[in-house]
Amino acid sequence: MVNIEIIGYLAGIIVAMSLLPQIIKAWKTKSTKDISIVWTAIYMVGLSLWITYGIGISSYPLILTISIELAMASSLCILKLRYG
Amino acid sequence: MVNIEIIGYLAGIIVAMSLLPQIIKAWKTKSTKDISIVWTAIYMVGLSLWITYGIGISSYPLILTISIELAMASSLCILKLRYG
Repeated sequence: MVNIEIIGYLAGIIVAMSLLPQIIKAWKTKSTKDISIVWTAIYMVGLSLWITYGIGISSYPLILTISIELAMASSLCILKLRYG
Repeated sequence: MVNIEIIGYLAGIIVAMSLLPQIIKAWKTKSTKDISIVWTAIYMVGLSLWITYGIGISSYPLILTISIELAMASSLCILKLRYG
């Protein structure tokens, strides 16, 4: 039987890691003009609420992986602010 | 007392809606060259797993809002494939 927690961790890690090529692309091209700053900003607020929800329902996959995703989104936001 | 389910719905709706300005931006500018196709593809796989996890732990906020987010991500992926 597949442990549902494992699926949660997998989901979270995949979604968080999916931002990595985007960050690398922005870093390498030094171009982020097609990326919406509004998206990155609202995204970070939403992720913070997911972490709050994860704490509320005691879901470790949510808390841990969404924290990584939040760090990723923050990096992208910094790149956007830097390269415009 | 704040209902934790409400925080979950709020988190999910905010994260899903955060993609809207990005979709509108891509739609209006018809330019998506700074958006990573690898990100959108992996992102959709991860979101599908989140929905599976949501079903596993019977979390309606996860199931419903991540489904909306998946629809948003799919739209962005289609725009990326269209405009390159």
